[in-house]
Amino acid sequence: MPIAPIIEDTTEPGPRGNYRKTAATRARILDAALDVFGEAGFDKGSLREVAEKAGISQAGLLHHYPNKVALLSAVLERRDERALSGLSSRPNGVEHLAYLVAYARESSLRPGEIDLFAVLSAEATRPDHPANDYMRRRYHWVSGIMRTSFEEAARAGLLREGIDPGEAASQLIALWDGLQIQWLLRVNDVVVADRLEQFIDLQLVRPLREIVQTEPA
Amino acid sequence: MPIAPIIEDTTEPGPRGNYRKTAATRARILDAALDVFGEAGFDKGSLREVAEKAGISQAGLLHHYPNKVALLSAVLERRDERALSGLSSRPNGVEHLAYLVAYARESSLRPGEIDLFAVLSAEATRPDHPANDYMRRRYHWVSGIMRTSFEEAARAGLLREGIDPGEAASQLIALWDGLQIQWLLRVNDVVVADRLEQFIDLQLVRPLREIVQTEPA
Repeated sequence: MPIAPIIEDTTEPGPRGNYRKTAATRARILDAALDVFGEAGFDKGSLREVAEKAGISQAGLLHHYPNKVALLSAVLERRDERALSGLSSRPNGVEHLAYLVAYARESSLRPGEIDLFAVLSAEATRPDHPANDYMRRRYHWVSGIMRTSFEEAARAGLLREGIDPGEAASQLIALWDGLQIQWLLRVNDVVVADRLEQFIDLQLVRPLREIVQTEPA
Repeated sequence: MPIAPIIEDTTEPGPRGNYRKTAATRARILDAALDVFGEAGFDKGSLREVAEKAGISQAGLLHHYPNKVALLSAVLERRDERALSGLSSRPNGVEHLAYLVAYARESSLRPGEIDLFAVLSAEATRPDHPANDYMRRRYHWVSGIMRTSFEEAARAGLLREGIDPGEAASQLIALWDGLQIQWLLRVNDVVVADRLEQFIDLQLVRPLREIVQTEPA
């Protein structure tokens, strides 16, 4: 896991400066939380460790995030927002699918993060888990995006006959989750992004790389 | 989760009777362990609860399984042995694939067990987890079986051109793991066995149900 960079605070005083300072502190806390939870797991990672890694006091941390669940939710939401912002800059469904492949490739550089999300995805299936609600909403949201992408591909005449966009979306998410487990276990020499691309290619009339010329990260 | 049946011990005394009695006690303990770990999770489920549910003393339990990890390993191995014994009675690769679909359908009747294995599969990706070694061996073993099944299908002229048996096996396991998460989260109305069958059908020249007339559980 990369060490969270210490963000230098060069903002001037005043409301806007304070706002920026708060944003920078929060970003530092979330980077630290991702590191700590990614290495030790959510159950075992402590707020004390997060505060230490972020270079602030525990009271300071609690001022921003009153408990571990609030902190975890913020980590999850930030990760999703980042992914979404990359997605929204793409013009259409097939470009979205190419983006997901690029995103999978790029996130393989952060194994601790993948580990955290793989374990959390499974643990949070339990109705009493603090992230259960978030994970359920997240699956609906992600599968909605992928479904729309496959629907747009269908309208552009790029989806193979007989492929149902909703099912293709659900299979793609399942593959992603399952391949990450194999990758983390270091079995089958899995390169997650390659496998996702192969699956998407099976749904399309032409390979993704022929339709989308580049695969920008 | 079904309550583990209390097995009545009607065996006569003597070495053979003792052996049978031991086997019956162990079966009762493993049923109880599956229930307890399936409901509470491996971390939170206690040996005390398992002993209580199995109707024996904690000392009696420790006589058979000296610690939680030994107990978990025995639960995992028994489950795999059962699955394997069903598999070995099938004559060839395509029949094996049909069996896996039937197995997925049948195990959906035991959600607690699926929950335990889904969470464990993810948690055990961590190298320091007590089941890490077992899970790695298990993935190699399961993907070997599936790969052989697809290879046999290829030799019988039933695999689509361009499909790599090893990759199809790895994708099938990943799909299975990932779909179980969606099923446990109750999103996307996933019926795991149906989705696995659809995936297998995509790899074959004819649908599984046309090749294997019945799908016995």
